[in-house]
Amino acid sequence: MFTTYNSQLLDNAVSELSKLPGIGEKTALRLALHLLRKDVSVSDALGNAIIEMRHNINYCPECHNICDDGRCSICSDPRRDRSTVCVVENVKDVITIEATHEHHGTYHVLGGLVSPLDGISPNDIEIASLVDRVKSQGVSEVILALSPTMEGDTTNFYIYRKLADLPVRITMLARGLSIGNELEYTDELTLGRSIQNRMLFSDTFHNDQ
Amino acid sequence: MFTTYNSQLLDNAVSELSKLPGIGEKTALRLALHLLRKDVSVSDALGNAIIEMRHNINYCPECHNICDDGRCSICSDPRRDRSTVCVVENVKDVITIEATHEHHGTYHVLGGLVSPLDGISPNDIEIASLVDRVKSQGVSEVILALSPTMEGDTTNFYIYRKLADLPVRITMLARGLSIGNELEYTDELTLGRSIQNRMLFSDTFHNDQ
Repeated sequence: MFTTYNSQLLDNAVSELSKLPGIGEKTALRLALHLLRKDVSVSDALGNAIIEMRHNINYCPECHNICDDGRCSICSDPRRDRSTVCVVENVKDVITIEATHEHHGTYHVLGGLVSPLDGISPNDIEIASLVDRVKSQGVSEVILALSPTMEGDTTNFYIYRKLADLPVRITMLARGLSIGNELEYTDELTLGRSIQNRMLFSDTFHNDQ
Repeated sequence: MFTTYNSQLLDNAVSELSKLPGIGEKTALRLALHLLRKDVSVSDALGNAIIEMRHNINYCPECHNICDDGRCSICSDPRRDRSTVCVVENVKDVITIEATHEHHGTYHVLGGLVSPLDGISPNDIEIASLVDRVKSQGVSEVILALSPTMEGDTTNFYIYRKLADLPVRITMLARGLSIGNELEYTDELTLGRSIQNRMLFSDTFHNDQ
């Protein structure tokens, strides 16, 4: 049988590794040869971790974040403010926002953005369950934390319309200059928006307490 | 239990993935979340390919290249010239040299280079089996194709001493200018060596037939 790397087993591992995003065939070969040099326990641990994660992972029935079982660690944490819900596109965004330590409420993971071009309608993502949460759980603020893209804005607007008649404050992440970036390298659209949305200088005194 | 990413299963997969060379924690998280989005068959195939490769891979008893069973596909190919043996450091170098289509003999994979600093002695790599092959199998030429480094040169010299009394021609890969590189960007050591080892211009006529 013809093989690229003299071994069907190695060919197979390289082929599967190179299906991962950002991993080309050369990198896949380097990773496979690395695993061949290491103890059998290393590749067993890696292989089993991948298989078990995908088989046994659960999603929080409340916020749709990943978790091992029951409600996720954020929803079940009594210190989190359950009346403030931050709406994010995916699981990774929860991790990104948690890293800022600025959000003390809970999350709602949509699992995607409305995108007519990609055939993703509002019914394909967790918008109905967000509306249910707002209606039934005394949510007082929904923070829209989606990417500032066409899809993010479309989804923001759709959610806004669905929640507009409910007694809930709807906010979104501020858009403006990136902190630490030079003014002259800021794109015109962002700069223009940050003039339109200019903020009271005195309001900034509270932010870094 | 405290978890970084809200799931012990995800934490575990990220931790195992980030043990791979060149894969940091951010990349590992991206790969793990990618696998979570894909069908379960994708992660099963990847995990099992890794586990099975490491458990079942074999090494050719003759040249120590990887293979699935018996002799490797190169050693068992009747079209290969068994009297010319190319000595390489590792399995990857076999693949690299095969890609040039310029070597029509067989290989001998040392499995490392002599490196006193790293505690690798000539007995730790496949030198004795190379000497046996040369003695018993009518090898007429040994091509030393090790990296032009301190360890490669040390190993070359050790092998040369072991084979010097045997009726075998010992050659090594040419060292000189990289084809396509500008003269002014060639390092001085390489340039100096390529003056010392200058070749007859007329000899180059044969190379590209």
